[in-house]
Amino acid sequence: METNLERIIHDIKKINEHSSDSNNGCTRFSYTNEDRLAKEYIISEMKKMGLDVVVDAIGNIRGRYNGSDTKAPIVMTGSHIDTVKHGGKFDGVVGVVAGLEVLRVLTENNIKLTHSVEAVVFVEEEGCNFGKPMAGSKGMTGKLNVEDYKKMYNDDGISMYEAAKKFGLNPDNIQNDVLKLGDVKAMIEVHVEQSSVLDSEKIPIGIVKAIAGVKRYGVEFKGVANHAGATPMNLRQDPMAAASKVISSIDSIIKEKAYPSTVGTVGKILCYPNVLNVIPESVYFTIDIRDVTKDGVDITAQEIEKKVHEISALYNVTAKMELTGEGEGITLADKVIRTIENSAKSRNITYKMMNSGAGHDACMLGDITDVGMIFVPSINGRSHVPEEMTDSKDIKLGCDILLDTIIELAK
Amino acid sequence: METNLERIIHDIKKINEHSSDSNNGCTRFSYTNEDRLAKEYIISEMKKMGLDVVVDAIGNIRGRYNGSDTKAPIVMTGSHIDTVKHGGKFDGVVGVVAGLEVLRVLTENNIKLTHSVEAVVFVEEEGCNFGKPMAGSKGMTGKLNVEDYKKMYNDDGISMYEAAKKFGLNPDNIQNDVLKLGDVKAMIEVHVEQSSVLDSEKIPIGIVKAIAGVKRYGVEFKGVANHAGATPMNLRQDPMAAASKVISSIDSIIKEKAYPSTVGTVGKILCYPNVLNVIPESVYFTIDIRDVTKDGVDITAQEIEKKVHEISALYNVTAKMELTGEGEGITLADKVIRTIENSAKSRNITYKMMNSGAGHDACMLGDITDVGMIFVPSINGRSHVPEEMTDSKDIKLGCDILLDTIIELAK
Repeated sequence: METNLERIIHDIKKINEHSSDSNNGCTRFSYTNEDRLAKEYIISEMKKMGLDVVVDAIGNIRGRYNGSDTKAPIVMTGSHIDTVKHGGKFDGVVGVVAGLEVLRVLTENNIKLTHSVEAVVFVEEEGCNFGKPMAGSKGMTGKLNVEDYKKMYNDDGISMYEAAKKFGLNPDNIQNDVLKLGDVKAMIEVHVEQSSVLDSEKIPIGIVKAIAGVKRYGVEFKGVANHAGATPMNLRQDPMAAASKVISSIDSIIKEKAYPSTVGTVGKILCYPNVLNVIPESVYFTIDIRDVTKDGVDITAQEIEKKVHEISALYNVTAKMELTGEGEGITLADKVIRTIENSAKSRNITYKMMNSGAGHDACMLGDITDVGMIFVPSINGRSHVPEEMTDSKDIKLGCDILLDTIIELAK
Repeated sequence: METNLERIIHDIKKINEHSSDSNNGCTRFSYTNEDRLAKEYIISEMKKMGLDVVVDAIGNIRGRYNGSDTKAPIVMTGSHIDTVKHGGKFDGVVGVVAGLEVLRVLTENNIKLTHSVEAVVFVEEEGCNFGKPMAGSKGMTGKLNVEDYKKMYNDDGISMYEAAKKFGLNPDNIQNDVLKLGDVKAMIEVHVEQSSVLDSEKIPIGIVKAIAGVKRYGVEFKGVANHAGATPMNLRQDPMAAASKVISSIDSIIKEKAYPSTVGTVGKILCYPNVLNVIPESVYFTIDIRDVTKDGVDITAQEIEKKVHEISALYNVTAKMELTGEGEGITLADKVIRTIENSAKSRNITYKMMNSGAGHDACMLGDITDVGMIFVPSINGRSHVPEEMTDSKDIKLGCDILLDTIIELAK
């Protein structure tokens, strides 16, 4: 039994017809018209195959293929269809399409299972509309409540709560939709790798062992704005010089003090007043640190903080380093990992055990169920960009392994 | 004979009444209503003391106190009243007020001089409205012509040429107002130091020996935007890491390879897409390098360029370093320096021989006449900021020395 390549390609194409991006990329924010149209397609496909479809209070879609024991914990699969701004066509979509296609195969072959199986589309995974990533899966697992949604705003100043209401949902009822320990037997998400490990090694399948924990910091150096020509080097209090010393030290801090699995990124920098002939008054930058190794994030953060204070004294500028966000890493369930591995072996598909530096909706279910993840290659490792691409044949291999894994876990 | 402290304070106050800055600072861009009102005050003061006032084709104001030989080269003094955005109340204004007050003293004492003396207000010194600094003094010395003014735009897309016309000027005639070798005997500008050397040493007067040359560069590193969590450190092509290595090397390059007089500043940085969880695709920053020592700028630029290429290879990113602007340094005239020094000595005013890292209107006249500059202290070295401040008593000392110097040179 296997999944169908043409249907997979067709699903991906149909979902990506709905995008507000005028260029090659894909932009589909939660609760927009594009989001609505793409979801209408998904729901109609779910209904075609006879699933029980429920849209929960915050907009997560759950399509259920009933098992013989409707009280038994369900087996779940799925991902998201929202994208970053000017992002790609595969991040999230691949996992949603995998769920759809696997349930199609189950229904058309009339496979009898004990446990019900659900294909899920989580809302607002990227956090690009309302600022908090995995806002849908967090709601489904009780990590965000109705009051939280009232405080998460988009760039137009509209809260996620309000936007959900305008979208026709009833976010006041989100408590009724929260999953508890015992409700779910396992959650398996197929996702693009978003890095170049699988692609560079020409391996079509990654089996995820652990997902990195993350801490995010904002660092601000404040100095004294002054004339770029008239101020001798030894009289400067230059926050740009200070910031550059810290940023440039991050890669060696990680290399020397942390682990090969640790990563640190400065993705955002703001300089004030940002004028070419004025020594800046202040420089702010973000640091995103992640690791699957438990203390890698904290070791790195501590060393960077030491550096911030050392540099602040050396350059006679003030410094502030603040934690702005964090996410726990998780270790995926051995039982699910072994089930995925058995399928890959029996189908003769090469695979690699690996870690994920990115968080995913599946992680949010880690405290209530066994979680597994199947990665498919990102060509050249590109993700969150229009060039994001995965070979359809690799997606089909991921779907076939998901099919086996779900049958095995739900039987 | 001396200048009058109250009148100096009053002039500064009256000019600074006209500002579009809602806070404590001062914003007065060329050809705005604030500029017009401040200039109306200056012209009315010039007329009160009986000067011949001419506004040239691009808006430079020249108020002339006639000498006995009206064909002899004139002695000139002056500065500007335009400011940077959210700047201070002294940069430029001090030199304009010094010219006004010195000519008041000459007229009220009916001092007989051979050479005519002009107090000048140059337009658009900061270059904050139309992008090119010293645009007025450059026009007066033939370094910019009417075609150049047509190509210099403000943020509203209006050219300096158009704006001058709307202000009631006739920029088409600028060629008629160009000064030639032999027209001017000497130009002396009083200006705030814009650094902390005089203030920290408690010396009220700086006599400028040389003005730094400047070269400005734009550096762009282009890498590959990617997921901040999923991309291992060794697979990154991170332009932020590369940029920070170069920026952080500038102070040591200057210390090790250039001179104590060399300065280098990164005042502006732009990162794309500038999102906290995305490894940037590109980082652009500016470098402003200045020195009074002839090869200091070039040595520094060459070393930075070497570093840019070395780092570009190391981080697997592309790099581009482009010259975006430059200004020649000048050595001020010994004869004028000695005249200023003699006045300071005879008045028992402590002074310091020093260099200027900033360019000034007076420099533009360096190729047609002898130039001198008198600096007064900037408290805490602050300039181009609302906190910019100079003690009125120090300004008066500068005015007294300017008075002696002008009498000596024009007699």
